[in-house]
Amino acid sequence: MLIVMEHYATPENVKTVIAAIEAQGFTAQPIPGGDRVAIGVLGNHGYVDETPFRGLAGVRDFIHVTKPYKLVTRDFHPEDTVVEVGGVRVGWGEKPIVIAGPCAVESREQLFAAARVAKENGADMLRGGAFKPRTGPHTFQGLGFAGVELLREAKTQFGLPTVTEVMRIDQLDFVAQNVDCLQIGARNMQNFDLLKEAAKIKKPILLKRGMSATLEEFLAAAEYLVAGGNDQVILCERGIRTFERALRNTLDLAVVPYLKKVTHLPVIVDPSHAIGIRELIPVMSKASLVVGAAGVMIEMHPDPKCALCDGQQSLGPESFAKMMKDMEALKGAL
Amino acid sequence: MLIVMEHYATPENVKTVIAAIEAQGFTAQPIPGGDRVAIGVLGNHGYVDETPFRGLAGVRDFIHVTKPYKLVTRDFHPEDTVVEVGGVRVGWGEKPIVIAGPCAVESREQLFAAARVAKENGADMLRGGAFKPRTGPHTFQGLGFAGVELLREAKTQFGLPTVTEVMRIDQLDFVAQNVDCLQIGARNMQNFDLLKEAAKIKKPILLKRGMSATLEEFLAAAEYLVAGGNDQVILCERGIRTFERALRNTLDLAVVPYLKKVTHLPVIVDPSHAIGIRELIPVMSKASLVVGAAGVMIEMHPDPKCALCDGQQSLGPESFAKMMKDMEALKGAL
Amino acid sequence: MLIVMEHYATPENVKTVIAAIEAQGFTAQPIPGGDRVAIGVLGNHGYVDETPFRGLAGVRDFIHVTKPYKLVTRDFHPEDTVVEVGGVRVGWGEKPIVIAGPCAVESREQLFAAARVAKENGADMLRGGAFKPRTGPHTFQGLGFAGVELLREAKTQFGLPTVTEVMRIDQLDFVAQNVDCLQIGARNMQNFDLLKEAAKIKKPILLKRGMSATLEEFLAAAEYLVAGGNDQVILCERGIRTFERALRNTLDLAVVPYLKKVTHLPVIVDPSHAIGIRELIPVMSKASLVVGAAGVMIEMHPDPKCALCDGQQSLGPESFAKMMKDMEALKGAL
Amino acid sequence: MLIVMEHYATPENVKTVIAAIEAQGFTAQPIPGGDRVAIGVLGNHGYVDETPFRGLAGVRDFIHVTKPYKLVTRDFHPEDTVVEVGGVRVGWGEKPIVIAGPCAVESREQLFAAARVAKENGADMLRGGAFKPRTGPHTFQGLGFAGVELLREAKTQFGLPTVTEVMRIDQLDFVAQNVDCLQIGARNMQNFDLLKEAAKIKKPILLKRGMSATLEEFLAAAEYLVAGGNDQVILCERGIRTFERALRNTLDLAVVPYLKKVTHLPVIVDPSHAIGIRELIPVMSKASLVVGAAGVMIEMHPDPKCALCDGQQSLGPESFAKMMKDMEALKGAL
Repeated sequence: MLIVMEHYATPENVKTVIAAIEAQGFTAQPIPGGDRVAIGVLGNHGYVDETPFRGLAGVRDFIHVTKPYKLVTRDFHPEDTVVEVGGVRVGWGEKPIVIAGPCAVESREQLFAAARVAKENGADMLRGGAFKPRTGPHTFQGLGFAGVELLREAKTQFGLPTVTEVMRIDQLDFVAQNVDCLQIGARNMQNFDLLKEAAKIKKPILLKRGMSATLEEFLAAAEYLVAGGNDQVILCERGIRTFERALRNTLDLAVVPYLKKVTHLPVIVDPSHAIGIRELIPVMSKASLVVGAAGVMIEMHPDPKCALCDGQQSLGPESFAKMMKDMEALKGAL
Repeated sequence: MLIVMEHYATPENVKTVIAAIEAQGFTAQPIPGGDRVAIGVLGNHGYVDETPFRGLAGVRDFIHVTKPYKLVTRDFHPEDTVVEVGGVRVGWGEKPIVIAGPCAVESREQLFAAARVAKENGADMLRGGAFKPRTGPHTFQGLGFAGVELLREAKTQFGLPTVTEVMRIDQLDFVAQNVDCLQIGARNMQNFDLLKEAAKIKKPILLKRGMSATLEEFLAAAEYLVAGGNDQVILCERGIRTFERALRNTLDLAVVPYLKKVTHLPVIVDPSHAIGIRELIPVMSKASLVVGAAGVMIEMHPDPKCALCDGQQSLGPESFAKMMKDMEALKGAL
Repeated sequence: MLIVMEHYATPENVKTVIAAIEAQGFTAQPIPGGDRVAIGVLGNHGYVDETPFRGLAGVRDFIHVTKPYKLVTRDFHPEDTVVEVGGVRVGWGEKPIVIAGPCAVESREQLFAAARVAKENGADMLRGGAFKPRTGPHTFQGLGFAGVELLREAKTQFGLPTVTEVMRIDQLDFVAQNVDCLQIGARNMQNFDLLKEAAKIKKPILLKRGMSATLEEFLAAAEYLVAGGNDQVILCERGIRTFERALRNTLDLAVVPYLKKVTHLPVIVDPSHAIGIRELIPVMSKASLVVGAAGVMIEMHPDPKCALCDGQQSLGPESFAKMMKDMEALKGAL
Repeated sequence: MLIVMEHYATPENVKTVIAAIEAQGFTAQPIPGGDRVAIGVLGNHGYVDETPFRGLAGVRDFIHVTKPYKLVTRDFHPEDTVVEVGGVRVGWGEKPIVIAGPCAVESREQLFAAARVAKENGADMLRGGAFKPRTGPHTFQGLGFAGVELLREAKTQFGLPTVTEVMRIDQLDFVAQNVDCLQIGARNMQNFDLLKEAAKIKKPILLKRGMSATLEEFLAAAEYLVAGGNDQVILCERGIRTFERALRNTLDLAVVPYLKKVTHLPVIVDPSHAIGIRELIPVMSKASLVVGAAGVMIEMHPDPKCALCDGQQSLGPESFAKMMKDMEALKGAL
């Protein structure tokens, strides 16, 4: 950490800060600059807490060189983590995967129709929401545990590993027993207690980036999982909230190659939630592969115009089939 | 709802949409415009679901006139709601209140010292975090249930109603038995299950605006509480996330008079988290009163430079005392 | 346009609004809804000005169905515009182009070295800034007119059409005489007088999206050029400003297929300014092709570590050569 | 400046960076940390250019301690600057001023009516736009030079100093001869050539913050004026662009006390453009005074419902008169 002093800080002020640094067992290293003095804090292992230095006279700013996470970075774990979801391998160096299925599980008929389309067209996993986070209380909230059971049935029938969102701690055990991968959604990325409890579950976790989460916060959220004992974590970019509202969110594709440098955990992309317009999904899925994503997650519904949730961004069977063919061709070319 | 057609939509397309509207039991009202046709959906009560109309040929856009919330608005409840917290009245037309106390409960000694300063200077409630949401797992996470018990003791000793944050459902009962008002923090504003369960508790709820929540989402989150049976809700503006990082967040003070027009629920302001710089807090507190807030929530620590959490934005006893005097003078003038 | 009334608006209020609509020569169409009345404004050609209806009693909101631009949309000009820059064709259906060159023209030696690398590796145009917009006044501001002359020389020597930024009206004539395409930068996207004057020049214009410009504002800025008589306009996505600062800006790639639906003007991508990190540029360039961009603009410097401007995001000769080969392979596959 | 090395940087890498620092005439000061080495750059006067150090092996990041501006800060000019506009003093320590008038000058009759209301109610200056920046080309663009002449007439008749926006360089001389203060609008805050030329004019400049300008960029834009020879600069906060669209912009009031610490130049607030809703303007004006602004700029129109521009945010004569009385009372109380 670097403590930047005000330009009017006195030599006495600097001495006091140095003493405070040494009182914490660190070494202080003053760096006189053109306009002001900065003081380096040396000898720390990991993140230095600013607390003991705050409010000291003449202190202007703190600059952290060390980040609030460690286990998720390549600095300390250079090799790719490969997450296994029901036999499917997800990792930076693995063949990119496709997760497909409806926004919400609506009925056995609907889910099985979607699973059939997914299977026949080469998808690797089946998604479907049983517990649905909705902006207001007056809209469809999902089938709940009954939906989770339908996912287990679909898995048995079609042989596809499954992923579904969990929203509260008391859902964790049941979901972990019935599906292959637990999703923690964007709105819960900083629901730290859910993260802490999910860390204890021996199942892969798909962690979505929060709507306005910085990459630092995203990685720190993943650190809760890894520090809690679960390193089977897949990160998912799903668009961020910006001033632009022509599309649902702003898909931040450049974070994929950026995160590839920084973390060993695999990153996949969810273009459906990011974009919100059906006809743009296939092209953004292909772009996700090109930037190196470990996979994509696609909303697909057997009959999008009757979907109870997010139909405008769901692909139907035909457009999904076409997209899968195009992506296969692209993978060959890459 | 208004369904906007593409400019190239055919009369056949328009007919199909009209039929779909009528199939839902609504009335369709075509509005031919200069460049394109729009079709009004009439006869609805409350929010109209777009689902049945999505994907129909020639449809370009949906414009919702009705919002995804209802119970929280003045349209349906014109009179101010007054929330009573341990005898203190919070409402648009009431005397503005001051909630003060440390970011985190650290010890009996620290909490009691803070409570004494709060009481002696005329604060109306005592705040203190027992469960702390922290960006990363490697920093102080709060005293937990022991912290809640200290709050109950402080209440007994100093006679101040108390408010503390809850982060998970299984904390609700214990906290409700021991403190007067439960806070749901910015990171949990869309933790819908926490909202649903908190709605069943017979205690006032202080709901903070999410870091990137629109006012529509903020009100829809409050709707979860009111629709679930708890109308004792205080809203809290605490700064939003923007591109600007010179201050911790961007305090969005204009939402106070805006929300006053829209909702009967009282709105208070938390300048401490919004600004993050101690010396700016008093002046932003005064501005909060001027724009009509029902109160302010202030971080105050008996010894800010030793605070375990957010010390840089906490007032010490002297600056808190001065702020309280200045605010009292201002209230007289308003 | 749709005028939404307050739910408490009286029948008298509605009558007054209808009269005001008819006074403008339009037809009024009331649409009674569940909670409130809306009134359609019919018979307009193009954008309706809200002015005469503002402030009328009981009016809550205006919803514009017609946009503030017209000439740039496919509604009125369905066929792709193909812009010709010194013989190079730029358009949605054309072979995607590559514009390459240094951020700033620094010297004849530097520019010619860059032009040689561009030419030898198959770039279609040469870029180089003569007039540089810099955040503060104390950094290198560009060579000015001497830089423009070097661009003309480079064009003669290497046979590449050239593009350079103009920042003030009195630069337009000289630049138009010496280079093939005039760039209007992100900071000047809403410098409307520069747009009006540039519209009179008979040279192609490369218009960059402003740092926080919505697509509506971006298209409205282009409308200034087309309405002013110059339809040789290339749009350029170059990243927007968001809360995320890990990368320089947030590259908004999904706008490319979105704009392809909306406008006949070609859109290219500038990943260099959007990302700001050299090693991520090639992969984002490839993604730009995949989403259908009409081309990319790349910062390339013969010796990036000595660049006077933006060296951290400039490719050197070798990485540029590699990127061009990879893109060629990708084009084959698409 | 601090150069942060990658954790895997070799001792050789560090040596190379040190040599590069010394080659620039600076002193290098290595600071070994827990995870990585940082190297302080010492002996600089003002901002250090990163250029010579970019791209060196093992370099991870640059942290600037010195800002890209200097003349506008209190570090180098501790005393308040007082700007005199036609005899009216504007400064942090002066009586806060009120600038009022219509968004656009529409006619002599309209401007004079507005000036009369301004004068009679104690406003200090008259505003009115002659050149209007409009999102699209199909709306009213202002009266131009004729509007400037009307402002001069209004000044003569009512004795109020005037302020109006300039949008292009060739307007500067005429406007400077006819009005007392030249405004540079939000869209032109980074029109650096306009800033450079305005710096040569011997008239006060009112510089508005750009829609998505950081405070660092805002101050750096002001630095162009001061470095160019004109230190008669008034800064104006007018709301920033965020994800929230319920109000026109997000008024960032906390920057007023923040900037008061940082710069000697006075800061005023424009609540009209920030909020965009007439009835909220008075209360936000009062809040502006409370946070210490040197003044406010208010849109006021003799007949807002007939305004050609921004009528929805303009006060009428009666509400303006009431606001002025309330503000006078508040000033007494502060």
